Amino acid sequence: MENRTEISEIGEFGLIEHLTKNFEIQNISTIVGVGDDAAVIDHFGKQTVITTDLLLDGVHFDLMYTPLKHLGYKSIVVNLSDIYAMNAQPTQVTVSIGISNRFSVEALNELYEGIYAACEKYGVDLVGGDTSTSKKGMVISVTAIGEVAPDKFVKRSTAQKGDLICVSGDLGGAFLGLTLMEREKKIFLENPQIQPNLEGEDYIVGRLLKPEARRDIIAFFEKNNITPTAMMDISDGLSSEVLHLCKQSNLGCRLYEDKLPIDDRSRAAAFKFGLDPTVCALNGGEDYELVFTLKQEDYEAITINEEIAVVGYMTDPKEGKKMISRGGNLFDITAQGWNAFHA
Amino acid sequence: MENRTEISEIGEFGLIEHLTKNFEIQNISTIVGVGDDAAVIDHFGKQTVITTDLLLDGVHFDLMYTPLKHLGYKSIVVNLSDIYAMNAQPTQVTVSIGISNRFSVEALNELYEGIYAACEKYGVDLVGGDTSTSKKGMVISVTAIGEVAPDKFVKRSTAQKGDLICVSGDLGGAFLGLTLMEREKKIFLENPQIQPNLEGEDYIVGRLLKPEARRDIIAFFEKNNITPTAMMDISDGLSSEVLHLCKQSNLGCRLYEDKLPIDDRSRAAAFKFGLDPTVCALNGGEDYELVFTLKQEDYEAITINEEIAVVGYMTDPKEGKKMISRGGNLFDITAQGWNAFHA
Repeated sequence: MENRTEISEIGEFGLIEHLTKNFEIQNISTIVGVGDDAAVIDHFGKQTVITTDLLLDGVHFDLMYTPLKHLGYKSIVVNLSDIYAMNAQPTQVTVSIGISNRFSVEALNELYEGIYAACEKYGVDLVGGDTSTSKKGMVISVTAIGEVAPDKFVKRSTAQKGDLICVSGDLGGAFLGLTLMEREKKIFLENPQIQPNLEGEDYIVGRLLKPEARRDIIAFFEKNNITPTAMMDISDGLSSEVLHLCKQSNLGCRLYEDKLPIDDRSRAAAFKFGLDPTVCALNGGEDYELVFTLKQEDYEAITINEEIAVVGYMTDPKEGKKMISRGGNLFDITAQGWNAFHA
Repeated sequence: MENRTEISEIGEFGLIEHLTKNFEIQNISTIVGVGDDAAVIDHFGKQTVITTDLLLDGVHFDLMYTPLKHLGYKSIVVNLSDIYAMNAQPTQVTVSIGISNRFSVEALNELYEGIYAACEKYGVDLVGGDTSTSKKGMVISVTAIGEVAPDKFVKRSTAQKGDLICVSGDLGGAFLGLTLMEREKKIFLENPQIQPNLEGEDYIVGRLLKPEARRDIIAFFEKNNITPTAMMDISDGLSSEVLHLCKQSNLGCRLYEDKLPIDDRSRAAAFKFGLDPTVCALNGGEDYELVFTLKQEDYEAITINEEIAVVGYMTDPKEGKKMISRGGNLFDITAQGWNAFHA
C-alpha cells in the first residue's frame, strides 16, 4: 500500500524544504538558491535570458492521463525550450505550485522527481518558487533563466528575405499522442472496464508526455559557428509559429508540404485516426521543436545534421504566407491550419 | 454603460499585444522585452536577483472586494518587496495570467493598468509572460528580477548574536484591513441591501489593497553606507519572519512588545474589532514591511530615520525565541502567534 501524507502535516514552509532538500547546485552562477526572498545569479559579461509559462490543470494538462512525474518534467522542458529558442543556455528555474489538498505529499514528491530529472538532464538549478493551496485544480508556474554571450541571442523579428526556413526533429507526434489519449479517455469514461490500449503507440505518447528541448541543436550551432537569423520554438504548431516569424520580420513565406518532417510512426497513427499527417504537422502543437531561419550560404553546414529539415524560405511580404502542396497547388497558411483542409 | 469586449474577440496573441503595447522600457539593461520566446537582460558586472510569487483567486485575494487595478498593482509590489529584501534593485518583471472567460478585455485592461502603475512607480520593465484560459478563477504569476553589486545582497541566514532587530513602517494594518473587508463582505452576503461601511478606515483598507514595497529603506541603506546583516520582507507576519531569521541564522531572539510599531489608526481599528493590536502586529501578514538585523554600531545611523523601529535583538540559540511583554513577562514566539494569546 502506498503511503499518504497530508500536506497539512508538513505545512507550507516544511513543504518547500522537504521538496528541495536534495537538490544540488549545478551552475557556478547560482550564488543563492532556494530558501531566501530571492535567488542571486552572477552573469558577469553575459546577458540574462528569462521566460515564464503557466500550466493549468484542465487547460494545459489532464491529470487523468498525465503521470505527475512526467508533468513535472514537461513543465521544466517547455520553459527551457523557450530559452534555447533564443540561442541561449538555460541555467536556473523557479517553480511555483498551487495545489488543492486532495493531493498528498507523495504526489508532490512525484511531481518534483520529474522537475529534478529535467533540471539534472539539462544542467539547470532550481533556485526558488513556492507552494500554495489552491481551491481547485493544480497550477504550475515556471520561470527559466538563461545566459547568452552579448549579441548572440536570436529573436523572431530578424529573418531576411530569401532565408531558409528550417525545422528540428519531426512534427505532429505530440498532437497525435493527445488525440490517442483523449480517445482512450473517452472510451474509459464510457466504460471503465475497458483498459486504455496504447500498444505500439509509445512514440506519439512519449512525444506528448515527455517532450525534450532541443539543446543539441543549439550546441550544433555553436560548434559549427552558425547563427540563425530568427528562431522560435514550436509550441502552438508550425503554421502558427511561421506566421509569427513572418509578422515580426515583416516578410512572407513558402513552405513545401513534401519537406515537412513527419515520423513514420506519426504518419501511421494519423492514418489510423483518419487524420491528414500534414495537418497534424502544421497545426498540432506541443512538439517543442525549433523553427529557425538561416542565410542560404549556411545550407551546406546544416546538411550534415539529420535532425534539421529545410521546409521552405522567407519571401517578400507581398507574396503572402503560402504552402506548396504535393500536387503543386498554393495554399494560404493560417494559424488555425491550412485553409484547404477546412474547406 | 461600460463596454464589454469578449477575450475571444481578440484571441491570446492579440491579447498580449493589446495589453503590452503602450509599455515603455525604463531600464537600459532590458535588451529584449515582451514579444519573443524570452526576454534578454544585460547585467554586466552586477548579480541578478530573481523571485516569483503565485497569486490565486480565493486564496490570496478575493475579487469581491479587490478592485482589479489594485490587484494588478499589488501583484507587482509583493514581488518587488522580495527583491528589496535582498538589498537589491528590481529591474524587470514577467507576468502570467490565467483567466476564465467570464472576465472581459476591459477587466484585464484594469488589471494591467495597476500592473503598469506599479512598474512605472518602481522603475521596472515588464519583459514577458503570457495570458491563458483558466477553467475557473484567476491565477496571477509574477517573477521579478533585480540587480545588486556583487556581495551586496543580504540573506536571511547571516544575522549575528547581539544584532539589533529592526522593522520598517508599521505592522498589523493589512490584517486589520482584511478583517474589516471580510466582516463587511459577510454582512453584504447576508443582506445585499446593506452597503459596505468603510468610513474612516482608509488607512487599514489601503494597507491591504495597495501595499507599497520599501524602496526608500534600501535607498537609505545605500546613502548611509549601512548593510543589514540579514533581512527579509514581512508577508506572513513578524513572528513567522523572525522565526525564519532565527532558524536560518541559527540564533534566538528577544522582541519587546512596547517597541512594535503600530499605527494609531490600526490600534483604534483593533480595539473596535475586539482584537489585541500586538497580536495583529505579530501575526497579521501582508504588510510588506522589511525586518532586518543590524550590527549594534549602526544604531546611531538609523535613529535619523523615523520609518525604522528597533524591536529587539538576536541572542544565542539557547535563549529561545521570546517576546518581553509590556508587563515584563517572557513569552514564546510561535509562527501561529504569541502563545499567551492562545492559552
